[in-house]
Amino acid sequence: MNNKITLRDVDFSKWYTDVVMAAKLASYTNVKGCIAIEPNGYAIWEKMQEILDKKFKELGHVNVQMPMLIPENLLKKEQDLVEGFAPEVAWVTEGGKNKLEERHCIRPTSETMFSDYFASHVRSYKDLPLMYNQWCNVLRWEKETRPFLRSREFLWQEGHTIHETEEEAIKETKQMMDVYKWFHHEILAIPSITGLKTEKEKFAGAEFTLTNEALMYNGVSLQAGTSHYFGQKFSKAYNIKFQSKENKEEYVYQTSWGTATRMIGALIMVHGDDKGLVLPPRIAPKQVVIIPIGKDERVFELSNKLNKELNDNNIVTYIDTTDRTPGYKFAEAEVNGIPVRIEIGPRDLDNNKITFARRDTSEKVTIDLDQDLVEFTKDLLEKIQNNLYDKAVERRDALTFTATNMDEMKKILDIQPGFIHADWCGNPECEVKIKELKGCKSRCITEDALITGKCVCCGKEAKHHVIWGLQY
Amino acid sequence: MNNKITLRDVDFSKWYTDVVMAAKLASYTNVKGCIAIEPNGYAIWEKMQEILDKKFKELGHVNVQMPMLIPENLLKKEQDLVEGFAPEVAWVTEGGKNKLEERHCIRPTSETMFSDYFASHVRSYKDLPLMYNQWCNVLRWEKETRPFLRSREFLWQEGHTIHETEEEAIKETKQMMDVYKWFHHEILAIPSITGLKTEKEKFAGAEFTLTNEALMYNGVSLQAGTSHYFGQKFSKAYNIKFQSKENKEEYVYQTSWGTATRMIGALIMVHGDDKGLVLPPRIAPKQVVIIPIGKDERVFELSNKLNKELNDNNIVTYIDTTDRTPGYKFAEAEVNGIPVRIEIGPRDLDNNKITFARRDTSEKVTIDLDQDLVEFTKDLLEKIQNNLYDKAVERRDALTFTATNMDEMKKILDIQPGFIHADWCGNPECEVKIKELKGCKSRCITEDALITGKCVCCGKEAKHHVIWGLQY
Repeated sequence: MNNKITLRDVDFSKWYTDVVMAAKLASYTNVKGCIAIEPNGYAIWEKMQEILDKKFKELGHVNVQMPMLIPENLLKKEQDLVEGFAPEVAWVTEGGKNKLEERHCIRPTSETMFSDYFASHVRSYKDLPLMYNQWCNVLRWEKETRPFLRSREFLWQEGHTIHETEEEAIKETKQMMDVYKWFHHEILAIPSITGLKTEKEKFAGAEFTLTNEALMYNGVSLQAGTSHYFGQKFSKAYNIKFQSKENKEEYVYQTSWGTATRMIGALIMVHGDDKGLVLPPRIAPKQVVIIPIGKDERVFELSNKLNKELNDNNIVTYIDTTDRTPGYKFAEAEVNGIPVRIEIGPRDLDNNKITFARRDTSEKVTIDLDQDLVEFTKDLLEKIQNNLYDKAVERRDALTFTATNMDEMKKILDIQPGFIHADWCGNPECEVKIKELKGCKSRCITEDALITGKCVCCGKEAKHHVIWGLQY
Repeated sequence: MNNKITLRDVDFSKWYTDVVMAAKLASYTNVKGCIAIEPNGYAIWEKMQEILDKKFKELGHVNVQMPMLIPENLLKKEQDLVEGFAPEVAWVTEGGKNKLEERHCIRPTSETMFSDYFASHVRSYKDLPLMYNQWCNVLRWEKETRPFLRSREFLWQEGHTIHETEEEAIKETKQMMDVYKWFHHEILAIPSITGLKTEKEKFAGAEFTLTNEALMYNGVSLQAGTSHYFGQKFSKAYNIKFQSKENKEEYVYQTSWGTATRMIGALIMVHGDDKGLVLPPRIAPKQVVIIPIGKDERVFELSNKLNKELNDNNIVTYIDTTDRTPGYKFAEAEVNGIPVRIEIGPRDLDNNKITFARRDTSEKVTIDLDQDLVEFTKDLLEKIQNNLYDKAVERRDALTFTATNMDEMKKILDIQPGFIHADWCGNPECEVKIKELKGCKSRCITEDALITGKCVCCGKEAKHHVIWGLQY
């Protein structure tokens, strides 16, 4: 391992890219703004897909696949959407040897194609709800890109559902935000916060947007998962009508929700350290690595036996049998964020022992072979999962501040950004003024917090309690 | 169910589209030449992905994701590839509000991006082999399209591997063709044939191409899975070099292999009948449907109990609890190709019996409840799988012909196309002449068959034994 990783506290941005490269999660390509997701990175995405897909299906969603090209006239039907996305789409203007009569954009998101599909497939309330999801690539012509966090092309899932009633659609919008929150807290060990986007920050064309916001180690926020309620906006624009129970013609109520490969970026920036990636066991594609030391026959026997036992008990384990030094193998497992490393060497074996090393704390513990090793490993993985979550909560809380006026806001942003709680009058002009402070934006309106004071910007009566912060 | 399906023997082409629509596998969209893959169709693709992905990984492959856009200058590096694909790619020429300095095509296949990636990631023989696969969408600007069989955008997997030696790369090329053959025979119940493509029909840029060819009910062939050996053609064009064991600089040996959603088309056209889709149990996303008849409490109890038992034993089962008549439910299960239908009604129950109906033969059998129903169902599913395979073999053999001259060739194609065995001199001019017979093409050179005669076209000495046929 000759991957030098910049120290996290010295240059966070460089540290991040170093970890992406050293852990072989992704690499740059000769296509500007687009990355190649390498095996280590893609395995994390596959694990994310597996867990989320199962959850979506349990809740009654089914997967489909819509075309990736959108004819311009279709895109233009919903004005907010086209204004929101037109500046950042890529246009196909030639097919084969011919210039196209109408240009097609590559989907930046698929409300258009789903709406057009729904319009021709729904007749009666008996056809509702339709609860669809698709796993796909999308493309947004971003100017500044960064691996996983902001990439021209990225992979995501986008759910699109239509319902008979407003109530049912709003329930779905909230439910899917709960799923993202659950996924972050329980699986990724990231204590994200959720809430409502302001009018200015909501999705183009949505009635309202719920968002899941995670705080990175450096105090910058990452939006990772949003759920939109569209009301009848798209159904009126795309003519998605149905015959109601009362035999009246009505427009459906619609939602969409999505999350993307940027969650891999969040994992790195919440849990990673100076040695590289740190993966919570529940999302780690490989949870345990066994490293045999020396050439003793007993070492290989026990390695194989333990490897089999752990895998048989659903602990994803592998043996590093490559032709490299133990030190190299230790370092590689650390860079790659493998939660648990088991070292099996002849000296320990003489004492009927093996060694477990935790990636999260670097602690090593020597275990008697008479112990139940499967149970011990399971426990250890749970401890690591919980410790990572607790550490992330601690960091988030340490970087959570309150501001009551612009001076306080500015001071916080100058010293150490984070989640900044501050009341707001609801006027977008104040939002614009706050943004002048290093690009600080409203992350979300929290639903539960009480409004206790005046607008942090203009000092007038506050309408909302808002969490503010810098963002990726 | 008011889906009228054209009779298969009356108009095969219309029958095919009717089945696609009636079984809700896909529908047309407002994007020319592109379909929406609907839940029933996508579920089959997910099952295909699951089985193939597992097999690929068992053989040491890992998944990655390359960009979907290819800059023109990169594409142009390998001349055969660009000539083969340039007429059918879509070009992105505008990004956001700006005209691009260089146009980018949407990948029609990804040899370019993988080769470019390999070139910057391989240094030493220790880095080899790299055995990558990606599941993605590709786009080819086809003029005539047909759902699943030929669509501008389609979903597929493309494996790309690089190796130290020619021997190893050729072994991989053959091994992956064996995987496709296994998948068709064992899972899809399609007795495909495999062999070598002629120079004229091989992949643009390949040294040789192995192909998997399936025969549809109407005697037309479908190429469903190809595996290419590139030798050092791409590694020289893209400069993929490594330091060998002997410390010399060498070019890698490369392969690629892929198969796509057109296999769904093959399933329909090999097994489907006048009632709709027929799915072999091993690829059916839902294997058994339970249809409760009447409102008797005992019916629901048994339905739930049996549903649980079958699912617990890895037989994917569901109960149709919708508010429609049993007749409607039977018809829907038939159109959708569910292999086994279990009918549970009060009259049967009075006699301690329930009824099993096979989708493949339409046979019904009444079973005593004292029997082991899980075992019975498992057996039945195996019987259906085998019966579908046997029927497909029978049909394929009935539509397999031999021709020794052009008159015989023409007569076969006029009466009933199929796989036509005929010797060939190896001259591409003869291939062109044969193609003048209704577009008949060489499907593959068979490896095992003996050459017994003269070229079917020119009468000169034959070099190869070839299977010919019409194609989708």
